[in-house]
Amino acid sequence: MTEETTHRRSGGRAARQAARAHAHAQSIPFLTRTLAPFEVLGEEGLALIEHNADTILEEVGLEFRGDPEALELLRNAGASVDGERVRFPRGLCRSIVQASAPREFVQHARNPARSVRIGGANTVFAPAYGSPFVRDLDGGRRYGTIEDFRNFVKLTYASPFLHHSGGTVCEPVDLPVNKRHLDMVEAHLRDSDKPFMGSVTAPSRAQDTVDMARIVFGADYLEDHAVILSLINASSPLVWDASMLGAARTYALANQATIITPFILAGAMAPVTAAGVCAQTLAESLGGMAFVQLVRPGAPVVLGSFASSISMQSGAPTFGTPEPALVLYVMAALARRLGVPFRSGGSLCASKVPDAQAAYESAATLQPTVLAGVNFVLHAAGWLEGGLTMGYEKFILDADQCGMMGVFVNGVDMSPNGQALDAIRENVPGQHFLGTAHTLANFETAFYRSDIADNNSYEQWLEDGSLDAPARANAIWKKMLREYEAPPLDPGVDEALREYIATRKASFPDSDT
Amino acid sequence: MTEETTHRRSGGRAARQAARAHAHAQSIPFLTRTLAPFEVLGEEGLALIEHNADTILEEVGLEFRGDPEALELLRNAGASVDGERVRFPRGLCRSIVQASAPREFVQHARNPARSVRIGGANTVFAPAYGSPFVRDLDGGRRYGTIEDFRNFVKLTYASPFLHHSGGTVCEPVDLPVNKRHLDMVEAHLRDSDKPFMGSVTAPSRAQDTVDMARIVFGADYLEDHAVILSLINASSPLVWDASMLGAARTYALANQATIITPFILAGAMAPVTAAGVCAQTLAESLGGMAFVQLVRPGAPVVLGSFASSISMQSGAPTFGTPEPALVLYVMAALARRLGVPFRSGGSLCASKVPDAQAAYESAATLQPTVLAGVNFVLHAAGWLEGGLTMGYEKFILDADQCGMMGVFVNGVDMSPNGQALDAIRENVPGQHFLGTAHTLANFETAFYRSDIADNNSYEQWLEDGSLDAPARANAIWKKMLREYEAPPLDPGVDEALREYIATRKASFPDSDT
Repeated sequence: MTEETTHRRSGGRAARQAARAHAHAQSIPFLTRTLAPFEVLGEEGLALIEHNADTILEEVGLEFRGDPEALELLRNAGASVDGERVRFPRGLCRSIVQASAPREFVQHARNPARSVRIGGANTVFAPAYGSPFVRDLDGGRRYGTIEDFRNFVKLTYASPFLHHSGGTVCEPVDLPVNKRHLDMVEAHLRDSDKPFMGSVTAPSRAQDTVDMARIVFGADYLEDHAVILSLINASSPLVWDASMLGAARTYALANQATIITPFILAGAMAPVTAAGVCAQTLAESLGGMAFVQLVRPGAPVVLGSFASSISMQSGAPTFGTPEPALVLYVMAALARRLGVPFRSGGSLCASKVPDAQAAYESAATLQPTVLAGVNFVLHAAGWLEGGLTMGYEKFILDADQCGMMGVFVNGVDMSPNGQALDAIRENVPGQHFLGTAHTLANFETAFYRSDIADNNSYEQWLEDGSLDAPARANAIWKKMLREYEAPPLDPGVDEALREYIATRKASFPDSDT
Repeated sequence: MTEETTHRRSGGRAARQAARAHAHAQSIPFLTRTLAPFEVLGEEGLALIEHNADTILEEVGLEFRGDPEALELLRNAGASVDGERVRFPRGLCRSIVQASAPREFVQHARNPARSVRIGGANTVFAPAYGSPFVRDLDGGRRYGTIEDFRNFVKLTYASPFLHHSGGTVCEPVDLPVNKRHLDMVEAHLRDSDKPFMGSVTAPSRAQDTVDMARIVFGADYLEDHAVILSLINASSPLVWDASMLGAARTYALANQATIITPFILAGAMAPVTAAGVCAQTLAESLGGMAFVQLVRPGAPVVLGSFASSISMQSGAPTFGTPEPALVLYVMAALARRLGVPFRSGGSLCASKVPDAQAAYESAATLQPTVLAGVNFVLHAAGWLEGGLTMGYEKFILDADQCGMMGVFVNGVDMSPNGQALDAIRENVPGQHFLGTAHTLANFETAFYRSDIADNNSYEQWLEDGSLDAPARANAIWKKMLREYEAPPLDPGVDEALREYIATRKASFPDSDT
């Protein structure tokens, strides 16, 4: 299902790694949906939102802050620049994006069997991103450390249902702000062989990410292969700031992929209505993607949308409500019309703990994510408390749901075996099917088997200690970490990576900004 | 949205009741979906399943057990009867059903403002049905009593998100088996004014339900108004038994509605594959619906499907897995093609407690329920442990989700206010929307407000006692019961109902079968 690729340094080891990956029964590199996406708006509604986005770009414009080079680039492309405010003639951003942005692309992993195709009918799950805190049943909530970070990289590597190592799986708050990206990228490259995300907090940190990837994949390899996918967030409403523009530029120049994402809590960063959020999101992302295409035509870009609601009483973000689900469906359709991959959704929740609120809210985001046809799903596992906390047990529970989605998207098997007509013909009314030949033949693969769900009798459940879902998940992540084995890394690469990091760390003082 | 109806005995009180119902801000009598249903199979696949159902009806047939009258009726209609096995020429059942079964119908409530339209683009939520046990945080799991039964009728009445009082909301195990239906129907008629379900465990109990409804609605009223909707389950595979046939006949003769439901745990009562489950479900329900139409052409029937998976290790039922969701989508499409209302789904789970497993599994059923376009949703709130237990806290959590569905099905507001273009135009890049005129104007209705979700800061949540979702739900159901006020009932009706029940109870001895 993935493009054939050859890695510079991986030689025959790649084949062995691929074989081992396939030995992991349920592991597939990404989902390929067979079902048409669910649509909540017709042609007329979608066209109206596109029209409104163009109106926003034309009349209000976007601010590109602290980046004169970006302003120059946009002016030369035909935009009107007034100070840092950039206004775009109708259709300009769309035509720039459509002229060169790929409809879909492969993000290559250092293990070719783990490469993912982003776009089209494909869906890639990555863990949650960006939380300063972590939580587990034993220690409760506390600041994340590099050990937690590595744990989540390892758990993601070990999960057959997550396809991508993600990025800032939690903030390693024990490391200096200006150097922690080196340790984070190192963990993704060393502790996993799934594709990963790069640093975006400063252009120099993006450059470090690119340089480290060049060590692992080979310098020239990056020139025509995307191996890094990074998250570029707008400062909504209608602002792109210097650090994000700088990181986006760095990645684009290296021909690496970026996700151009307006981050919107409706009511705060955008109007409270779905159609308003969609028009503004489209305007902001079009501007950002056009910028990237002007920096380097053809650099992969993903249209991102992070949109949720707020409590109109407290202003606190809320998740799993119906309005953001509607936004998600509309944005997915708009990305398809534009012809670029789409990132949104995940397992979002406001709950502090992995309880019923967390699960209901997460499901109310993850199911639309899959039915809408999202291509890259950040925050697919672990998210708690509006993203402030990465939860160990929540991670396990969410990954299980991702596994179920992998079955759902395959749709209904209409083969003769799937129709099972002979099995029904051969059976007698009133007699159960438990021992029939058809049942026995399909026993192993008939139904998704959750490792976390307890389906036993009440009496058995009591005997097993009356554990709730988080208690069972607690045992599972610990077992996964105990059994973790690092994917092999070429000793020369390993050494070069260590040397790069040591040199960089020694070259400037620690700082907490 | 509901048909205009006048109740024999309700007079001017009905108008007052309706006014009070409307005063409950979010209360609507049922959902009307504006979005096209999600489809998982195309024309070819659906036609193939219909063909297979006909093959099953023709070659294997159905058993109609212990009911010679039913066999006679079916033989006269053109079926081939061999002992109790009835085989149908291809298309016969379909043509019988399509000749007289209504595409949709109104189930009238004693408060006309609560009447529900079943079929078409409408969705009606009813609480869970049939559990012998109840559970709450204080008392844990125990056998249900008539007090629990009345509590759930009251909670359902008080919930703005449940449209229907349901039936056996829990088994009142403290009452004799052969008389408890009188108390159950009484509770639905007295403690609520929402539409309700009748007894089906014996034809005489169905008749009691009809007679009690005649007291409340007027004897003649039932002749051309459905006021009872009852659940007729097949003994899958391919069997209809005497008590269910008898109850179905009793209701049909009184022109009351029935839900003809194959109850299938795939792997036990049907093959393990989705397409097999669908063909068998369609065959069984077609046979049952044809029987009802032969008893009384035009009596409202609903195509029901209860389908889940089992653990292939233990044989225990499993819920919230992807395979039953696929079955649900297919069956909804088949019901639309047939032209009858559809019942399925709910908030099903295997979990013993209202934890993350319960919520994830329930969401994995309820979301397909709504996206598939189910018309009548039994088990929408309260279900735990594969239906063995009705949970107080689960009920509150589920009802909240039903409330969210009510917003989702309205789709995206594309009015000028919904587009919010002026709000974006008038705003400055980088400035939040919290205080803008558009936000203030839409403040009250912008987002679904959950009573259960905690969206506060972590610190606030700690200060509030670190409650999880069930702990908060516990406080809510207790408050709802404390504040419950019975809907008014005409004193003459009340007296006649009590007299009927007393007379019936005195006319035969208690029995536990």
